[in-house]
Amino acid sequence: MTEIGIIAVGGYNEMGRNMTAIRIDEDIIIVDMGLRLDRVQIHEDVEIDKMHSLELIEMGAIPDDTIMKEVNGNVRAIVCTHGHLDHIGAISKLAHRYTAPIIGTPYTTTLIKHQIDSERKFGVKNNIVSLNAGDSLEITKEISIEFVNTQHSIIDTVFLVIHTISGSIVYACDFKLDRTPTLGEAPDFKRLKELGEEGVIALITESTNAGRNGKAPSEMIAHSMLRDVLLETEESDVGMIVTTFASHVARVNSIVKFAQEMDRIPVLMGSSMERYIATAHQMEYIELPENVEIYGNRREIDKALAKIMEKGKDKYLPVVTGHQGEPGAVLGRIANGETPFKIDRGDRIIFSANIIPNPMTQANRYALETKLKMRGARIYDNVHVSGHAYREDHWELLRMLKPEHVIPAHGTIQMHSEYIQMAEDAGYVLGDTLHLLRNGEELYIDEE
Amino acid sequence: MTEIGIIAVGGYNEMGRNMTAIRIDEDIIIVDMGLRLDRVQIHEDVEIDKMHSLELIEMGAIPDDTIMKEVNGNVRAIVCTHGHLDHIGAISKLAHRYTAPIIGTPYTTTLIKHQIDSERKFGVKNNIVSLNAGDSLEITKEISIEFVNTQHSIIDTVFLVIHTISGSIVYACDFKLDRTPTLGEAPDFKRLKELGEEGVIALITESTNAGRNGKAPSEMIAHSMLRDVLLETEESDVGMIVTTFASHVARVNSIVKFAQEMDRIPVLMGSSMERYIATAHQMEYIELPENVEIYGNRREIDKALAKIMEKGKDKYLPVVTGHQGEPGAVLGRIANGETPFKIDRGDRIIFSANIIPNPMTQANRYALETKLKMRGARIYDNVHVSGHAYREDHWELLRMLKPEHVIPAHGTIQMHSEYIQMAEDAGYVLGDTLHLLRNGEELYIDEE
Amino acid sequence: MTEIGIIAVGGYNEMGRNMTAIRIDEDIIIVDMGLRLDRVQIHEDVEIDKMHSLELIEMGAIPDDTIMKEVNGNVRAIVCTHGHLDHIGAISKLAHRYTAPIIGTPYTTTLIKHQIDSERKFGVKNNIVSLNAGDSLEITKEISIEFVNTQHSIIDTVFLVIHTISGSIVYACDFKLDRTPTLGEAPDFKRLKELGEEGVIALITESTNAGRNGKAPSEMIAHSMLRDVLLETEESDVGMIVTTFASHVARVNSIVKFAQEMDRIPVLMGSSMERYIATAHQMEYIELPENVEIYGNRREIDKALAKIMEKGKDKYLPVVTGHQGEPGAVLGRIANGETPFKIDRGDRIIFSANIIPNPMTQANRYALETKLKMRGARIYDNVHVSGHAYREDHWELLRMLKPEHVIPAHGTIQMHSEYIQMAEDAGYVLGDTLHLLRNGEELYIDEE
Amino acid sequence: MTEIGIIAVGGYNEMGRNMTAIRIDEDIIIVDMGLRLDRVQIHEDVEIDKMHSLELIEMGAIPDDTIMKEVNGNVRAIVCTHGHLDHIGAISKLAHRYTAPIIGTPYTTTLIKHQIDSERKFGVKNNIVSLNAGDSLEITKEISIEFVNTQHSIIDTVFLVIHTISGSIVYACDFKLDRTPTLGEAPDFKRLKELGEEGVIALITESTNAGRNGKAPSEMIAHSMLRDVLLETEESDVGMIVTTFASHVARVNSIVKFAQEMDRIPVLMGSSMERYIATAHQMEYIELPENVEIYGNRREIDKALAKIMEKGKDKYLPVVTGHQGEPGAVLGRIANGETPFKIDRGDRIIFSANIIPNPMTQANRYALETKLKMRGARIYDNVHVSGHAYREDHWELLRMLKPEHVIPAHGTIQMHSEYIQMAEDAGYVLGDTLHLLRNGEELYIDEE
Repeated sequence: MTEIGIIAVGGYNEMGRNMTAIRIDEDIIIVDMGLRLDRVQIHEDVEIDKMHSLELIEMGAIPDDTIMKEVNGNVRAIVCTHGHLDHIGAISKLAHRYTAPIIGTPYTTTLIKHQIDSERKFGVKNNIVSLNAGDSLEITKEISIEFVNTQHSIIDTVFLVIHTISGSIVYACDFKLDRTPTLGEAPDFKRLKELGEEGVIALITESTNAGRNGKAPSEMIAHSMLRDVLLETEESDVGMIVTTFASHVARVNSIVKFAQEMDRIPVLMGSSMERYIATAHQMEYIELPENVEIYGNRREIDKALAKIMEKGKDKYLPVVTGHQGEPGAVLGRIANGETPFKIDRGDRIIFSANIIPNPMTQANRYALETKLKMRGARIYDNVHVSGHAYREDHWELLRMLKPEHVIPAHGTIQMHSEYIQMAEDAGYVLGDTLHLLRNGEELYIDEE
Repeated sequence: MTEIGIIAVGGYNEMGRNMTAIRIDEDIIIVDMGLRLDRVQIHEDVEIDKMHSLELIEMGAIPDDTIMKEVNGNVRAIVCTHGHLDHIGAISKLAHRYTAPIIGTPYTTTLIKHQIDSERKFGVKNNIVSLNAGDSLEITKEISIEFVNTQHSIIDTVFLVIHTISGSIVYACDFKLDRTPTLGEAPDFKRLKELGEEGVIALITESTNAGRNGKAPSEMIAHSMLRDVLLETEESDVGMIVTTFASHVARVNSIVKFAQEMDRIPVLMGSSMERYIATAHQMEYIELPENVEIYGNRREIDKALAKIMEKGKDKYLPVVTGHQGEPGAVLGRIANGETPFKIDRGDRIIFSANIIPNPMTQANRYALETKLKMRGARIYDNVHVSGHAYREDHWELLRMLKPEHVIPAHGTIQMHSEYIQMAEDAGYVLGDTLHLLRNGEELYIDEE
Repeated sequence: MTEIGIIAVGGYNEMGRNMTAIRIDEDIIIVDMGLRLDRVQIHEDVEIDKMHSLELIEMGAIPDDTIMKEVNGNVRAIVCTHGHLDHIGAISKLAHRYTAPIIGTPYTTTLIKHQIDSERKFGVKNNIVSLNAGDSLEITKEISIEFVNTQHSIIDTVFLVIHTISGSIVYACDFKLDRTPTLGEAPDFKRLKELGEEGVIALITESTNAGRNGKAPSEMIAHSMLRDVLLETEESDVGMIVTTFASHVARVNSIVKFAQEMDRIPVLMGSSMERYIATAHQMEYIELPENVEIYGNRREIDKALAKIMEKGKDKYLPVVTGHQGEPGAVLGRIANGETPFKIDRGDRIIFSANIIPNPMTQANRYALETKLKMRGARIYDNVHVSGHAYREDHWELLRMLKPEHVIPAHGTIQMHSEYIQMAEDAGYVLGDTLHLLRNGEELYIDEE
Repeated sequence: MTEIGIIAVGGYNEMGRNMTAIRIDEDIIIVDMGLRLDRVQIHEDVEIDKMHSLELIEMGAIPDDTIMKEVNGNVRAIVCTHGHLDHIGAISKLAHRYTAPIIGTPYTTTLIKHQIDSERKFGVKNNIVSLNAGDSLEITKEISIEFVNTQHSIIDTVFLVIHTISGSIVYACDFKLDRTPTLGEAPDFKRLKELGEEGVIALITESTNAGRNGKAPSEMIAHSMLRDVLLETEESDVGMIVTTFASHVARVNSIVKFAQEMDRIPVLMGSSMERYIATAHQMEYIELPENVEIYGNRREIDKALAKIMEKGKDKYLPVVTGHQGEPGAVLGRIANGETPFKIDRGDRIIFSANIIPNPMTQANRYALETKLKMRGARIYDNVHVSGHAYREDHWELLRMLKPEHVIPAHGTIQMHSEYIQMAEDAGYVLGDTLHLLRNGEELYIDEE
């Protein structure tokens, strides 16, 4: 008999600071160590990279892993399932406390290394191991992990499968069942169904969009929407700026392609744009056309913007950071008139992003849009689809995997409530096979 | 010098009962005669086809054209720009009062004839004239009308251009600048720009979606979304029902095609489904595959549903009326268990429609969805894009036509307010070149 | 050692069909048997009083008490804590299945008798026992119940306390900590604190307004708001109609008093107005002035309305049913023009009620208000305060009673989620001392 | 014949930067010169008091009075109708351009003097004249002004009446028809009705709350709600802090009185609290108890907070600034832990204020509340009523004054739209007797 413990370290009461520990008897695998940005944003003048983990825990910005002291077992691995900050952002603050390797897909581990390099308080010396989607790795004699390919709003995202002698545990936090992705492969449905046949003890799954009906639209839809906005309009020679998530490599890839079709030179600007896209390019996740330009630092960016003004806005398509109105990002500086780029009446700003539903972000966006509009810009907002599964995607995953136990994670209790109602429709029973965990709790499952 | 009067008969204070009279000196062209359904819905047991126009005017359901008595001139034509009820639904109640032909595109006039045929109170004897998009017609020696092709959520929609000796007046109520439509041609941008060069005195334009940022997504996006929902999923053999606007011929056409791809027989059901689609087919606006089945009356529909249950739900794709929860429509009857079709757990209901934002409709939809869910159905809602121009589409039309005067129509004062703010960005001045009219008012424009 | 079972029969997944069974070893006390009206409203032509309980259970309209078969024990009593339909409305459908008396406060039991009398499907023969707030009753040798006075939007509402040899169980479903009520006494805080000292095993409590910050405003505030609207205005001689919850005896009492101050004759109209208010008057819960008129049936009402038209609207204050737009209620009939009462421009309709947040009700209200406005009425809406405790009221109750276990009831999972977060602030732990139950579940508590 | 011009300088397209010029033939009276704070908030590091008016105009923060150059006439007076920043905040930037006295009620003129004193860019030398509510002043031989007492959320607010030989013009921007105010007198209804009898040419009136049904609740309601929250609760010895608008003298006055009843010492803290309340006290608008303490500067405040911690929180009731989460205000500093005051679990923060509906403010409030809750505070929000007339108050004012022309002001086009619909109900006609003005426009009215 195996005793399995699912320890909800963080991200069960909120969006952001995700961390789950999965205990198989006395072996523990930690999954994700994320950062909750909005708990940082409510403070002025906070520099995360210099802060101590205990301070960040108290602020609610990173998972409170001090509870791990109460858990009986040894951490054998720290696994990150993709490279977003809410999954890797606390690595540099917490990972050094555990004598265990950090495991992720190649793109994810590269981002983790960047994260560790920019840390100024702690030194993280853990071994960092890359594992490709589709591959497996033995953790102990009785436990191995497997990465199953999936889709999300960042490349190289995987489902984590922990194989034990009693069956598998699947961790599906942040995924999208996209069968027509614009980059990478569709999720490995065949393997998911096999896992379901083999026997899944527990599924830990995000509940972000469990309240949205139907299925998450494919990234192909966002691709078509963007094409519609960029190419199917009048006044095609006005200034246009696109802003999107720098980490959304597939999206940026689409934009770069449309720039070619528009006969404009794509110019990627912003330090995170450089970090995510140049990295993806070097690692050969994407091909970029020869004429693409990428600028990460402020001086270079302003020089490029001056060149655009000189040669003609209609010859370039700037792709910039700042879609959430982040102070200091490229778009914000343009809106403030701090760069050589001048907005003329009728210029278009295309937000290929949603507004993150958080009052701090909403205020930043409001300030940004107000300034852009006062300069005469026309706004195209939300040319975007979500990277998170909707209710019926969850329904499908549940029915493919047929787990004995289901634990919604990565969200507020309200989001979990939506998931719970869906899972009840599928026959699960709260408190029996369906579990609502709160940060700090451990769920015990005994498996024969 | 020409004196032009724009008389706001209906649809300037509300959505629905659209009617505008355009006076050129003493010649009047009436555009649209629409019905406001939600003013009917708030009453129980109302039978419109038996009601007198004055009663319907008092209810606010049709335009109050009694004000036409005060207008100095003769009505020379009644023009309907497309076949939706909010544009043609009052024809059978009001048109007989005017000695003037009713003019529309072929599909529109066919629908007008159906409308007149089903009227049980009044006899409408006006001459009915078909005019194709792209064609012109002389109304008086000095006035001609021209139909310019556009796109909307029904086929054969046009912009109306009234040519006078002083310039043209453009009526653009209900349109979408869709350059990649799935049926019919894109709007005639070349002609619109020519009209702008020739001189437009006034533009009367809908304001429905003037408050939505960016551009209305192309129907191609709805097409892709539907494809994603219907074809890119697991459990492809469950029962599936699609419901959409019967008058949205392009949409139904897409669904029928997807049924072929899914290897299911498309079965169109509902009296309005038969009316709109069979008509469009007979008039050769669409081709339908040989295996398509269309049933308009209840007995036939129930027989077809029985056959589907017998042969296997996975062999058919019913396309039904009832997306707004209309009592008596096919989907409502299925939800009530009044038909042979039984919903099993996991069957999918796909709403390729938005919910009309009106408390009566919202209640009907709530009741419908509640019943469907209680039977185990999975809901895919809002697999849809709007047929109405968004803010930047309006911006583009304004800049193509460069009208001297702009009058938002077809909406509430709040919708017009959104339009006004956009038009001000484009340089128009309220009370001078931009006009907010209320039902019953006449705007006077003197043109040299 | 005592084993306590809390069985969530109904009202744990939704608002409305409340029913909880509390098992002390093998003795069971059922608390409340309620009706969920909106599950009835979604159907046309449903006559509840003729329907079988199993049908109503399938519709989700009454609690599914078939699960009681699985519970090991004997029902000793059915207790109703107040007279609203969501607490007593299923008595006539379910109570006859149990050989146990029905116990409530005097006003509650009178309403239960009315309920039973109007039933046309089942005969309910259970003994009906009245117990005053403040009094106790022995149920078995080891179990007694006590009613502790509280406040709510109906008179004679109580907290139920079940005393066992191991401590007490408190059922607080639907209450308000109103220290300045306009009718009846404030909740018995002294007794609540004593109970806390004596030891409370479990608190079962409503979560309706747990998501609202602060405290529920006292009924005294509604009283002042009404006074402000009725007396502190110009044009005091226009027609005025007040509509409110017929069961809200305190509110109607205030309105009647204001009518006196306004020198108008209060005329109470509507069958439920007669049922609740005349009953409260006969039972001496309220005094009514001599000139008050009460009419329950349609013919009498229309006669009274004709008299008002004749003698002058400024001499009367009609207090009518129909605030939720219920078809057939007095206000709806006035709005339809079906009564002798004619609305003139400037007449005022005062809704001393909120709109029940349910699409069916919202549609009814929309239809009602639209018709009233079309006749020229001026609308004063939401002159009202809630009868349900807010978040800080719950906080206070928790800290007075200091229960070992807390179970939010009477609401959706979203409402319970709000309660849970508050209780966590107070130190409770979900899954340990704080429990989220779903309909059909039993929570086991072992007490020494 | 008199020609009257109503010039919409600012506040007709937005909330905040109010300024209207009223021209009677060639004599002009400017009414209000306000500041739009949220146009300042979207910028970082802006110091208004050092900025030039043209810069502030470009930012949209103050009215664009450069259009006054086009108006034919001489400014004879600048009148401010109350002391809120959106009515006086631009005085120090704009008034010096006009050779005209600044006229207001005594409290208003005192606040104007403070405003001028804190200005660091411009020197305002205009004569400042106090005029009491109820009094009149001759401006030219043919024009006099009269102040008619009204109520609002600041003391000494008036309606401005401009008497001309052809009739009067009434400016009613920011008022409330409160017949049971807690400070000062009810509006002078008798005089308003007289004015209506004498003949009102035009009414310029705020539209802020024209979209809210019914009447604005009396300040007496806020008084009762506050009393309910402060006195009618358990745990009366916990720490409590009240925050409200410093300029809302009546509200602060109520809070101070409740502190007495609670046997706590009221301690008013914050620089604006000192400015508004100490001023009102010195001018004898309010009496304060002997034990009240008022602290305006940071050092004093922190010293007082230290004393409170030492002597016991239950002995004091701090009344502080910061209800909108303003950075640097007292409550924000407490939330940040920057003061000696430590929040314990269960301490109460009572917001006797609404959240200003603006994303910047909403973000500040979110950050503030989050921090307060993380420290264990319990939040009581919105213990407040509005100071702006609701729809039926406007209806009553219209019917008392019976103006020939009505111009909604002080709001967005959406707010004006609500007003317009109400005025249409009262018989006014848009474009004829009812006017929608935009910033920069002049309305001409010819009066015999």
